Amino acid sequence: MKPINIGLLGIGTVGGGTFSVLGRNHAEIVRRAGRDLVISVVADKDLERARQVTGGKARLTADAWSVVRDPEVDIVVELIGGHTIARDLVLAAIDNGKHVVTANKALLAMHGNEIFAAALKKNVVVAFEAAVAGGIPIIKALREGLTANRIQWIAGIINGTSNFILSEMRAKGIDFATALKEAQARGYAEADPRFDIEGIDAAHKLTIMSAIGFGIPMQFDKAFIEGISKLEAVDIRYAEEMGYRIKLLGITRRAGHGIELRVHPTLIPSKRLIANVEGVMNAILVKGDAVGPTLYYGAGAGAEPTASAVIADIVDVARMLTADPDHRVPHLAFQPDRLSADPILSMEDVETAYYLRMRVLDQPGVLADITRIMADQTISIDAMLQKEPGEGEDQTDIILLTHVTREKNVNVAIARIEALTTVTGKVVRLRLEALS
Amino acid sequence: MKPINIGLLGIGTVGGGTFSVLGRNHAEIVRRAGRDLVISVVADKDLERARQVTGGKARLTADAWSVVRDPEVDIVVELIGGHTIARDLVLAAIDNGKHVVTANKALLAMHGNEIFAAALKKNVVVAFEAAVAGGIPIIKALREGLTANRIQWIAGIINGTSNFILSEMRAKGIDFATALKEAQARGYAEADPRFDIEGIDAAHKLTIMSAIGFGIPMQFDKAFIEGISKLEAVDIRYAEEMGYRIKLLGITRRAGHGIELRVHPTLIPSKRLIANVEGVMNAILVKGDAVGPTLYYGAGAGAEPTASAVIADIVDVARMLTADPDHRVPHLAFQPDRLSADPILSMEDVETAYYLRMRVLDQPGVLADITRIMADQTISIDAMLQKEPGEGEDQTDIILLTHVTREKNVNVAIARIEALTTVTGKVVRLRLEALS
Repeated sequence: MKPINIGLLGIGTVGGGTFSVLGRNHAEIVRRAGRDLVISVVADKDLERARQVTGGKARLTADAWSVVRDPEVDIVVELIGGHTIARDLVLAAIDNGKHVVTANKALLAMHGNEIFAAALKKNVVVAFEAAVAGGIPIIKALREGLTANRIQWIAGIINGTSNFILSEMRAKGIDFATALKEAQARGYAEADPRFDIEGIDAAHKLTIMSAIGFGIPMQFDKAFIEGISKLEAVDIRYAEEMGYRIKLLGITRRAGHGIELRVHPTLIPSKRLIANVEGVMNAILVKGDAVGPTLYYGAGAGAEPTASAVIADIVDVARMLTADPDHRVPHLAFQPDRLSADPILSMEDVETAYYLRMRVLDQPGVLADITRIMADQTISIDAMLQKEPGEGEDQTDIILLTHVTREKNVNVAIARIEALTTVTGKVVRLRLEALS
Repeated sequence: MKPINIGLLGIGTVGGGTFSVLGRNHAEIVRRAGRDLVISVVADKDLERARQVTGGKARLTADAWSVVRDPEVDIVVELIGGHTIARDLVLAAIDNGKHVVTANKALLAMHGNEIFAAALKKNVVVAFEAAVAGGIPIIKALREGLTANRIQWIAGIINGTSNFILSEMRAKGIDFATALKEAQARGYAEADPRFDIEGIDAAHKLTIMSAIGFGIPMQFDKAFIEGISKLEAVDIRYAEEMGYRIKLLGITRRAGHGIELRVHPTLIPSKRLIANVEGVMNAILVKGDAVGPTLYYGAGAGAEPTASAVIADIVDVARMLTADPDHRVPHLAFQPDRLSADPILSMEDVETAYYLRMRVLDQPGVLADITRIMADQTISIDAMLQKEPGEGEDQTDIILLTHVTREKNVNVAIARIEALTTVTGKVVRLRLEALS
């Protein structure tokens, strides 16, 4: 079967990430998609940059219009941004019968109704997972995962820049201006940060989620938007004293008399999981009447996280163009004839970190014996806790945390430790994962 | 177009939830699916129970075999459980060309390879979102949302009973046996709790996620499984002292030499979001090479959360059977001709709670004036914080948290408070959401 040909409009941060991830994971992605995927042409005004990123592996052009008209192109991936030229190009691509994948939230929030109507008429898909919360598959969750539910509300931390600033303000007790400078220094905020800090970017994303959650047209112009630029450090402190964190939330709720659509700094109870989402990470909490609350967390921006969503949309379209409808998505995600023969490891061969607790006699040399055994098995110790013996007791607990090592080494070490006359009873072994 | 006819096998907890949610949200679900959905026949050995749950709204039978052979049935929903009769019925349904939706993790972990091969041969779908983590759409995220990624590892709290027990042990400092009794009293643990507390249920779910994440066959027999029944309270305490929480994690990881597949109590850093998942809730952390870590959180069991996933699968099949492939999933989740005309509310009409900070003169009667104004606007106060004036100052801050009220009332109250001669400067207003 001939490959799916992709025309990429714009090879900046997200475009570059898309090119790179699709190249690096090509085999794995094709095993899932059931069809070869090729970025056959890249349009960018900066041909030199395009040349560097693509390394000669795709045809280049400075003329985006030639891509949306190219009869060889099956999917147009719009990563230019903005809502003027991008709108014209997307509508032209649709008009030429191309499927479109876009990460452009402003475009959809402002012109989504027109674009989807055009796509419906031309029988093409406009996919936009990357437009909301970067790599988090929240559009798929809302459109397909939660279809049983009457959605009650959606509340999201959907602007990483603002969340980074608020996290810094709280953690370091600094004011907004200082935190913004820190965000700019780290490349998390633009030189002109208004889009992010004034809530406009969040409102674009919220508008899209609201439409999908409640089945209403996009109505960005009706959103209430208040940013974080006037937020004072003192209020973050008072909120914390009262058990709350302040987050820039996008909230859309089905009220008795209509739909709420609003972005503003919001106090939320500190104990909520979403209150503990820090730095540039995003999270969306969705309340459905059947499922209750569900939360989706991950990187909301950045080259590769956003590329992850762009490529997921490309695979969705490729699966649709390739499979009979019954097998659009393979049962085990990968094509049945492309499963892997990787073996499952026996526990002896697993590598992880360990928590070991042992009861020892309170005598000199005990710890030396134990640490010698660990060293013999090339197990390195990350942390140790030794408790004082209780009143009148001659035994105490030693707890060791190890660095990552192989289970079989730990088995040997435990057997040898248990054989020491200064160690009483069994060694308690638990495993430890940093999950980083 | 004729409705999609569903044959329901088993109307216990999840079957009852499915019947009830599909009835309650029928209009909303059909707006999404683009096709009417009808539970046309229910098979259950307990016909009396079936009669009570369905209230005469579906044909009943005690013979599940008649359902899987029924020419009128398009989708068989298997909610019987177990892996003997359920296996035979699912294979027979497939053999009769029915699509199958199942919540049965044991069945898939043990016989999934055989079942999917049969489904492939007969060109039918076997959908199983409800088999892992109840209402959390984790199967969809892994199979469709993260297709760009080389998955590095998946770590999940995927057994609510165990997580409840561990949460209780930590919060109350009680031992395993006491916490288990508490779980049983609350209906979170069975009389025979071995499946949950010994990690078997978690291993079933992990086996399924591992297969999907890495594109390998189901290999439940190779899983390493260690439960929580031998866990001692003292280790939970020591772990906490060292900055860790203990959770029963299912972990599957791509190692250099094979795939790890293991369930065991695990220390994880307390600051990780997943370490703070408490009670019966589930959460799955997935690490992809492009997207980084993403987390999915929600109810992992229960009648309606599990029904949410069962119905999502039904809608998936209905959309596939109904739409031309290009419009399987409507752009805005709902069919384009079935959007809602619900208006977006103006901010004045939004109802939420508030944080109000005001600078006041340190004089008698000030608080009385303020609370009088609040009462006049029928705003009730949830909490108050009054700071002592600083050394040599004659002003201080008062912070009020309100219960939920209408924004327009708060606008009036703020204007009146700012007009008080004892209040200096503007009132700072932030909004507050409990997100419960």
